[in-house]
Amino acid sequence: MTTTWVAELADALGPDSVLTDPDVAASYARDQAVLAEAGTPAAVVFPRSTAEVVAVLQIAARHGVPVVPRGAGSGLVGASNAVDGGITMVMTRMDAVLEVSPADRLAVVQPGVVNKALRDAVGAAGLFYPPDPASYDWCTLGGNLAMNSGGLCCVKYGVTTDYVLGLEVVLADGRVLRTGRRTVKGVAGYDLTRLFVGSEGTLGVITEATLALRPAPAADPVTLVATFATSAQTGQVVESVVTSGVVPSMLEVMDRTCIRAVDDMLRADLDRDAQALLVARSDAGGAAALDEIAELTRLCEAAGADLVHSTADPAEGDLLLAARRAALPALERLGDVLLDDVAVPRSRVATFIDGCDAISAQYDLVIGVMGHAGDGNMHPTIVFDGSDADQRARAVAAFDAILELGLSLGGTITGEHGVGTLKADWLEREIGPVSADVHRSIKDALDPSGLLNPGKVLRRRPSATA
Amino acid sequence: MTTTWVAELADALGPDSVLTDPDVAASYARDQAVLAEAGTPAAVVFPRSTAEVVAVLQIAARHGVPVVPRGAGSGLVGASNAVDGGITMVMTRMDAVLEVSPADRLAVVQPGVVNKALRDAVGAAGLFYPPDPASYDWCTLGGNLAMNSGGLCCVKYGVTTDYVLGLEVVLADGRVLRTGRRTVKGVAGYDLTRLFVGSEGTLGVITEATLALRPAPAADPVTLVATFATSAQTGQVVESVVTSGVVPSMLEVMDRTCIRAVDDMLRADLDRDAQALLVARSDAGGAAALDEIAELTRLCEAAGADLVHSTADPAEGDLLLAARRAALPALERLGDVLLDDVAVPRSRVATFIDGCDAISAQYDLVIGVMGHAGDGNMHPTIVFDGSDADQRARAVAAFDAILELGLSLGGTITGEHGVGTLKADWLEREIGPVSADVHRSIKDALDPSGLLNPGKVLRRRPSATA
Repeated sequence: MTTTWVAELADALGPDSVLTDPDVAASYARDQAVLAEAGTPAAVVFPRSTAEVVAVLQIAARHGVPVVPRGAGSGLVGASNAVDGGITMVMTRMDAVLEVSPADRLAVVQPGVVNKALRDAVGAAGLFYPPDPASYDWCTLGGNLAMNSGGLCCVKYGVTTDYVLGLEVVLADGRVLRTGRRTVKGVAGYDLTRLFVGSEGTLGVITEATLALRPAPAADPVTLVATFATSAQTGQVVESVVTSGVVPSMLEVMDRTCIRAVDDMLRADLDRDAQALLVARSDAGGAAALDEIAELTRLCEAAGADLVHSTADPAEGDLLLAARRAALPALERLGDVLLDDVAVPRSRVATFIDGCDAISAQYDLVIGVMGHAGDGNMHPTIVFDGSDADQRARAVAAFDAILELGLSLGGTITGEHGVGTLKADWLEREIGPVSADVHRSIKDALDPSGLLNPGKVLRRRPSATA
Repeated sequence: MTTTWVAELADALGPDSVLTDPDVAASYARDQAVLAEAGTPAAVVFPRSTAEVVAVLQIAARHGVPVVPRGAGSGLVGASNAVDGGITMVMTRMDAVLEVSPADRLAVVQPGVVNKALRDAVGAAGLFYPPDPASYDWCTLGGNLAMNSGGLCCVKYGVTTDYVLGLEVVLADGRVLRTGRRTVKGVAGYDLTRLFVGSEGTLGVITEATLALRPAPAADPVTLVATFATSAQTGQVVESVVTSGVVPSMLEVMDRTCIRAVDDMLRADLDRDAQALLVARSDAGGAAALDEIAELTRLCEAAGADLVHSTADPAEGDLLLAARRAALPALERLGDVLLDDVAVPRSRVATFIDGCDAISAQYDLVIGVMGHAGDGNMHPTIVFDGSDADQRARAVAAFDAILELGLSLGGTITGEHGVGTLKADWLEREIGPVSADVHRSIKDALDPSGLLNPGKVLRRRPSATA
């Protein structure tokens, strides 16, 4: 059977666009989530056009073969992990920036465009595409759209979905759907655009996107770093920033575990005794940026910061930020890592950090907490030895305890990384049975055979898997 | 039959919450759209709680009675117009602001809260709920959510959907769905929140909303007015504002027809020979606001404005804005009006205004064009004598020609008023047959009996109505 549909794929796309060598295919089996389930694809295809995506989905539908859309493989929850015997469809060859329009302040892109490539292309026109996941220099926009990715500047500028005006999507049966518009506003019909954004490839394959852009921010950001003796003080800063009305373009946190790991790696002369370090930035420009940072300085001092330092020198600012960006690589030097992604209401950030400390003690594992404090999106990162079965089991238990903690604080099991396979068993615990049923109804309406990225986001109804 | 379910409604809600007197019920038959289809409700109900909404929908489902949700009746496309023999469910008694949280910068509201009541409630806490439809002092938030309403400040702050974190929705079968979250970010599952926002009551009845707020803008707006001899000059200003990167908090336009009608009504000493008048505002505060208005002044002068005047005096600024706000009432003094709502890409605003002039000449009807120039959302307003069948027919034809023009320029048939019954026959022309089918699939998945607001947004499949 497999040979039939593989031959049809090769006919439709050309043999250079279809890989079946098991060793090569295996390299497309999973993304960056070490503990997420993954199968082995029977074929990996590399379409060059919407028409080729249509052909793949029609062949898959005819033969009942599951299809997993994939970008660069930078995902963190296994959302593009392969399904055994299925097709993994890699979108990286559809990598054209089709249009940048300064007059309508938008861009039209194919899904394989790397985030940074779009940033550079629109930057050349004095424009700005804000969503900036940490993998922005290699992740693709198609992946960003499928996962509704965030990043460091969300606190001021929002996430991917806030920039999507319209999509072209190939549905499970090969029909080509266009959603949305080129206009700033529009309310003609249901918001299908945002239904597909963040649906993790389970409802359709995005083949084109029309993205809103912003004017480029001021070129002279001002950056602040502050250290604190308690996480309560850090939480107080977050809360007072929210209530003050200052909206920094970045407000990042890392805890003592991260501070020490970064200091070990970068020898950056960080305060190794601080319980938490905040990095904030203003891109308001000129005097406005200095005013914002002065206000943030006051708020840090009022919370009892041990040290507050700010700089308008971009190079020094980038150095301060580099420490925060180094937190994950620094933890990865200590062992295998399991990166979590919980968002809590902004008033609960300090409670959440303390709760992670308690979980670290309970499971006897190093857990470094870093995150986007300004929007309450925290990334507790569990360090463990993957070759040690006991540590591995404790890491999974600690991971679950962190999700439980997040939910108990009114938060969500995922702020920006998505559900994938890693948290598919958790989703219904957050959204409840009615919402899970509505999810399944929509999935069934758009993909009745369940061929698009099966097993991701939400488990099937028990009856459907029997 | 009717008596059975009416008695059940009276049992469930109490007799004071169920109206059946035909004369009284008739006053809930339609909204503000004069030419939109409307039936007569068999019963009008006024639930006080989610539990009562559940009861109404369960009774309706049992007896197969259609249900039309309704807020204040301020709609402009007949989306809350009654269905013959159906239930009109008026949400105005569910009017509590349940929470305002400065620490999490959000509010939780019931659907019957008037937009202005929320603005006032959060304003008292130094916060800001931006969406400001023209009817903000009487329209309800439930209506705003159902229609995804816009307003004057969208050009800087976006529309209703940009402020919705989560919803409570009662589904057609009476199940209570919660969507979204209290956190700033979150990607757990499909974006059901935004699927319901703008669905015009066809997918569920919104009974609670968690709304994101912003810090209050500066209290000292700076306002600019400029007049131009050609609409091309106005279009040039819009385009140069977009490319300049200045984001005013308001950028409104009205054409000569509106200018003269307003001048006749207000005796405001406007330039009656100007082809177009722009009103812009900056709420950036202090020097930043003055800088923005200075830049807008330069852009108006560069486009060849006949007059540019700006003021930092709030009272004078409000007077300038009052002229723009008076445009619709001023046209209403001239006859019946048919208000259209087309959004075009911002680069096409001038072409659109000129096209409306041509349509005015072609159909020999006065058409005043006003709109939110900064986001390309224009409201051509056709003046006609509703008692004259020929004028009425020409008005409808001109209305259609305006929609056709908008689509031909890459625009949408509705920027912010919605589809309702008025444009239900137009929707598929904009979105195409695949999208229409996807709409119907989702509608069928959530409301298989088609009882929620039937006939609105999208016509049923021909086979379903046969």
